[in-house]
Amino acid sequence: MAIPPSPLSTNRYTYLGPEGTFTEQALRTLPEAATRELVPSVSVPAALDAVRNGEAAAALVPIENSVEGGITATLDELATGQPLMIYREVLLPIAFAFLVRPGTKLEDVKTVTGHPAAQPQVRRWLAEHLPTAHWESAASNADGARLVQEGRFDAAFAGEMAGPLYGLEPLATDIHDTANATTRFVLVGRPGRTSARTGADKTSAVFWLGDDHPGALLELLQEFAVRGVNLTRIESRPTGNGLGQYCFSVDAEGHITDRRVGEALMGLHRICPQVRFLGSYPRADEIAPQIRRGVSDQEFSEAADWLSRALDGRL
Amino acid sequence: MAIPPSPLSTNRYTYLGPEGTFTEQALRTLPEAATRELVPSVSVPAALDAVRNGEAAAALVPIENSVEGGITATLDELATGQPLMIYREVLLPIAFAFLVRPGTKLEDVKTVTGHPAAQPQVRRWLAEHLPTAHWESAASNADGARLVQEGRFDAAFAGEMAGPLYGLEPLATDIHDTANATTRFVLVGRPGRTSARTGADKTSAVFWLGDDHPGALLELLQEFAVRGVNLTRIESRPTGNGLGQYCFSVDAEGHITDRRVGEALMGLHRICPQVRFLGSYPRADEIAPQIRRGVSDQEFSEAADWLSRALDGRL
Amino acid sequence: MAIPPSPLSTNRYTYLGPEGTFTEQALRTLPEAATRELVPSVSVPAALDAVRNGEAAAALVPIENSVEGGITATLDELATGQPLMIYREVLLPIAFAFLVRPGTKLEDVKTVTGHPAAQPQVRRWLAEHLPTAHWESAASNADGARLVQEGRFDAAFAGEMAGPLYGLEPLATDIHDTANATTRFVLVGRPGRTSARTGADKTSAVFWLGDDHPGALLELLQEFAVRGVNLTRIESRPTGNGLGQYCFSVDAEGHITDRRVGEALMGLHRICPQVRFLGSYPRADEIAPQIRRGVSDQEFSEAADWLSRALDGRL
Amino acid sequence: MAIPPSPLSTNRYTYLGPEGTFTEQALRTLPEAATRELVPSVSVPAALDAVRNGEAAAALVPIENSVEGGITATLDELATGQPLMIYREVLLPIAFAFLVRPGTKLEDVKTVTGHPAAQPQVRRWLAEHLPTAHWESAASNADGARLVQEGRFDAAFAGEMAGPLYGLEPLATDIHDTANATTRFVLVGRPGRTSARTGADKTSAVFWLGDDHPGALLELLQEFAVRGVNLTRIESRPTGNGLGQYCFSVDAEGHITDRRVGEALMGLHRICPQVRFLGSYPRADEIAPQIRRGVSDQEFSEAADWLSRALDGRL
Repeated sequence: MAIPPSPLSTNRYTYLGPEGTFTEQALRTLPEAATRELVPSVSVPAALDAVRNGEAAAALVPIENSVEGGITATLDELATGQPLMIYREVLLPIAFAFLVRPGTKLEDVKTVTGHPAAQPQVRRWLAEHLPTAHWESAASNADGARLVQEGRFDAAFAGEMAGPLYGLEPLATDIHDTANATTRFVLVGRPGRTSARTGADKTSAVFWLGDDHPGALLELLQEFAVRGVNLTRIESRPTGNGLGQYCFSVDAEGHITDRRVGEALMGLHRICPQVRFLGSYPRADEIAPQIRRGVSDQEFSEAADWLSRALDGRL
Repeated sequence: MAIPPSPLSTNRYTYLGPEGTFTEQALRTLPEAATRELVPSVSVPAALDAVRNGEAAAALVPIENSVEGGITATLDELATGQPLMIYREVLLPIAFAFLVRPGTKLEDVKTVTGHPAAQPQVRRWLAEHLPTAHWESAASNADGARLVQEGRFDAAFAGEMAGPLYGLEPLATDIHDTANATTRFVLVGRPGRTSARTGADKTSAVFWLGDDHPGALLELLQEFAVRGVNLTRIESRPTGNGLGQYCFSVDAEGHITDRRVGEALMGLHRICPQVRFLGSYPRADEIAPQIRRGVSDQEFSEAADWLSRALDGRL
Repeated sequence: MAIPPSPLSTNRYTYLGPEGTFTEQALRTLPEAATRELVPSVSVPAALDAVRNGEAAAALVPIENSVEGGITATLDELATGQPLMIYREVLLPIAFAFLVRPGTKLEDVKTVTGHPAAQPQVRRWLAEHLPTAHWESAASNADGARLVQEGRFDAAFAGEMAGPLYGLEPLATDIHDTANATTRFVLVGRPGRTSARTGADKTSAVFWLGDDHPGALLELLQEFAVRGVNLTRIESRPTGNGLGQYCFSVDAEGHITDRRVGEALMGLHRICPQVRFLGSYPRADEIAPQIRRGVSDQEFSEAADWLSRALDGRL
Repeated sequence: MAIPPSPLSTNRYTYLGPEGTFTEQALRTLPEAATRELVPSVSVPAALDAVRNGEAAAALVPIENSVEGGITATLDELATGQPLMIYREVLLPIAFAFLVRPGTKLEDVKTVTGHPAAQPQVRRWLAEHLPTAHWESAASNADGARLVQEGRFDAAFAGEMAGPLYGLEPLATDIHDTANATTRFVLVGRPGRTSARTGADKTSAVFWLGDDHPGALLELLQEFAVRGVNLTRIESRPTGNGLGQYCFSVDAEGHITDRRVGEALMGLHRICPQVRFLGSYPRADEIAPQIRRGVSDQEFSEAADWLSRALDGRL
C-alpha cells in the first residue's frame, strides 16, 4: 500500500464511529490495522476531514451497500473539497446481532432500535419473532446499542462486536434479510502514488457532464465501452446546480496503468468539463477482469508499434 | 388528473409528515388539495402503503432533491411491491426558517437541530451567524421543530410553516446555500389511466438490466437515444441481489402516448428482464421538449404510412 | 411470387444478355423461367427499362459478385429513376469454360478474350497453361465467345452454355480462382405486393444521408443494430452531388413484415432525407436469421400489449 | 513530398494511360511533374506494379469519381499485394470535349464512342444534339479518340488534351451532366515516410472485419467517432472470401500524427484482424477539419499530463 505519510507523522487511522460499528469491524480485517491507532470519527465528513488536515493518515468509510445503494455522504465528500484517494477496499457481509441488556428475555422486548439501514435487513426476523415490537431509528447501529445500555430501548440490532463494548448480550446473531447482503468500505488517504497494480484492480473516478447535452452520459459510457472497460458501479449524484444536473461516480474494472483504463480516463478528461480521479486499488474479491480481444496491454503496445512503423512507411 | 378513486372511496390525500414539512407545503400548492382531507404519514413507505391499501387516494412524497439527489426510500418503494403510478409532480424551492421559542435571541442559541438534509443548506448561514453552535440531527425538519418546542434544543431549521404549528418564531427566513436548490415531489396513486398528454410531460419508469452484461446500461440509453428521447434523471439503485447489481430509475421527456416515447419503452420492455412503468404526467416547469428531426408524432405516422405502402409496392 | 402483371400483359422475362451469359444461366434455374419467353437485353439499364416500360414483366440482373463487389450499374439503376422492386434472388457459382473454335488446340491459342470481370478468375489458369497468351477485354463473356466465332480471337472465357450458342468447344471447364466465387442476381419487377415472408428472407433498400452530418452512417447502422437486424451487404454509392456525398445500398436479414425490420425501416425513413425500399424476398441460401433476445415478433407483440396496458394503468 | 527514391533511381512517374487521358491531365497539374519523365501504363494494376518493381517512382491513378463512385481496380490493388502508400491527391473537374476528325460536321456524326464512365456525363448532351447517334464503349476515353483517328467511329468524348494527340478537333467542350462532377486521383509510391502534416490532411486505410460479427462495421465507425474523426469516404469491398465478406476502404480527415487519428488507427489495429495504412497526405481542397471539443492535440496532451499526475497522486 502506498498511503502517503501524514504531514503530522501520525500513525492514526480513523473510521466511521462510534466504536463497535461495522466500519470498525471492517477496518480490523486489514492486516495493517493491528499496528495503527484506531480512532472513531462522528461522521463520514469528519473522518475524511481528519485525513485532509493530517490528524489521521487514513480513514475507512462505507461507500456502497448492496441493499441501500451508494453511501451518498461518502460519494459526495470524495467528489468535492480537497482531493483524496482510495488505496484499499474492504467487503463485509452484513449480519446483525440482536443485543439486549443481560437478563432481558425475548418476550420482554417492546422497543427496538438500530440504524435506518438495518431495518430492511431485520424486518423479516422482527416480523417472525417480535411482530408487535416498536421500532425507532438511531443515528448508528452502535448508537442504538448505547441507547439500550442507557435503558431507552429494550434491544438494538448492531454488529456483534458492539455487544461487549456496551455491556450487551446477543439473543440472536447472523440476522440478515437478503442473501449476499454486503457493505463495501474504502480506505482513503491524501493523494499519493496509486496502489500497485495487482491484475485484479478497480479504478474509481467522478465525471461531470456538460450542462446542456442530453447524450452526454451515453458518450461517457462509450469512452469506456470502446476500450472494453467494464463498470462495476455507476451512481448519479446531483451537482448542486439544480434538478437534472448530475455528476457520475464510477468504479471501473482495471488499474490506471492498464492501457485500456488509462486511455478511457484520458478520453473522459478530454470530453468532460471536470474529472476527479479517486484511485486505483486491489479488488477485495480478487476477481481478475475478463479482457476482450483488442484491449490487452500487449495489443495496445503492438498497435503503438504498428502506428510508429506506419508513420515511417515500414509496412 | 386521472387518479383512480380509492376502493374505500376516500377523499384523503396523505403526505410525508409530520405536519409542517416541506412535503405538506408542496401538497398545498396543488389546487385539488383544497378539497381533500390531508393526512400526514410517518414515512414514505407508510404514505405509499396507505395508497396501496386504500386508506388514501393519493400520496405526495419527495422523489428528488437538487442537493441530496434521489430520495432512495421513494425510488425503492415505487420500484418494488404492489405497483403505483405518478400523476403529478410539484417543485418546491428549498428555503429554511431558523425557528426558536418566542423570546429566544440569536446569542442565546447554543444547540440547533434539523433533518440531516438541511445541514448542507444551512451550514454557511450557521458558520456566519452561530459558528460555535452545536448541531444534532433530527428525524425530520418538523420533528426538529417539535424538539425545540419541548426544550431539547434551542433552535431548529425547518420550513417556515412549521413555526405556528409548534409555537415557534423565525429569527431568519429564506436560508439556503445553493442557488436553485429545489425539491421535487410526486403525487402517487393506484394504477389507472395515465394523466392526459399536455405537450410538456415526463415519463418515469424503472429498468432492470440482465445479470451478466456489462454493456447493458449503454444499450438501455441507446433505446432512448435512437428515438431522440432525452432523460432528465437517471438513478442507479441496487437490486438487493449483491454489489454491482442495479436497476435504473429514469425520468424521460415526453408522454407515453408520444410515439418516440412509446417505441423506446417497448424497446426497453423487449431487452430488459423487467420494466416498471411509473406514469406519464405534466412537467411542473411546463417546459416542452426539443424534438429533434425525425421523432415527431407526424414523422412517425408518415413512416408508418410509407412502410404500409412499401409492403404493397405503392412506392 | 408476386410480380405484378405487365401492363402489356407480356409473358416476357428479360436478362442481361447476350444469349449464353451467366445471367441467362442463372435465370434458367428459376422454375417459372420454363414458362416464360426469355429475351436478352444489351445492358442492365436496358433490361430494367424494359420492365419499367412494360416490354418485360421482369428482368434478371447481376447485383453482387463475391470477387468484384457490387455491380454498380444495377445498384445505381435500382436507386434512381422510376421505382422497381426485387422479388427473388439467385446465386450462381462462378466457373468459366475455355472456349475455342472446333479443332483449335491449346498450343494454338495466342489471343484470348472475356469480360474484364473474368480476368481475375482465370488469371491463375492462364499463367499455368498459357503464360504467353495475349488478353484483350470484351464487353461481355458471351460477346467474347462471339468474337472467337468471328475469328478475332483464338479463345474466350465464358459460361459453358455459351459454347453451343456460338459454335465453340470447351478445352477446359470449371475454371475459377477464388473458392466460393459466386455471383448474385436479382429478379426485378414493377412495384407490387412484396414476396411472401418465408422466415429466411432479405430486405433491400437504399438510404440517402443528410449533407452535413459526419456521424450519419453511424446513426443509420444504429437504427438496424438497436433492433437486432443484421446487414448482409452494405455499399456506398456516390449521389452524383460531389465527392464524399453518398447513399448506401443495403441488404438486411429479414422481411419487411418482421417487426424488427419494419421498425428499423421506419426509423430510417424518419431520419434519412430519402429512402427507397427495394423489396423483401426469399434468401436463395434459405438461411434463417439468428434472432437475438428481444427482437422476435412475439416479443414485439408482448411489448405492444404491455404498453397498451401501461397507458391504462393495468400494470 | 516524401516519395522514397526508386531502387532503380528512376525519375519516372507513370499514370493510367494512354496519353491524353484525364489522368495525364491531372498529373500535369502537379508542379513536380514538370521535372519528371511521364510514362503511361495500360491499366491501374500495371501502373502500380511499375511502382512496386521500381520501374517508376510513383503512379497517378484515379481512386474516386463523384459520379461513378470508387474506382474498384485502384481500391483493390492498393488493398492487396505488396504495400504502397499515397503521397498526394489531385482533384480534376470532369468535362468532356466532343472530338472529331478535322472537317467532320455535327450532322455527319452517326457513331460515337468513349469510356463507359463518360456515358452518364454526356447522355444529356447527346440526347439534345445527336439523338440518333449510336454509342459504343471504348476501353478508355483516349482509346476512343484513337478509334476515331482510325476511322472506326465518327466522334469520341474525351478530355480536350486528347484532341491534338490524335489529330482530332473539338466540336464542343466542357460537356458534363452533373454539376460538381469531379474525379479524384492519388499519387502512389513505395512505402516511406508519410507526407508532412499540413493541418488540412487526409488519411487512407483499409480495414478487414472479423468473419462472424454483424456489428463489426458499427464498431469500426465508433473507433473513429469516439475520437471525433470524420470520414470523407467509405467503400465496402469484397474480400474475395464469399458474398457478404467485406473490407472497408476509408478516407478520414486528419493526419496520422494528429493524436485523434493515431489513437483511432491504433484502436482499429487492435480490433480488426487486418489493417492496411495507405498514407496521410495534404487535401487537394485544403479544407481544414472542424475539430470538436476534446480531440485537439492540445487536449490530448493535457489529458496525458493529467493521467500522469493522477498516477502519482498530484491531483
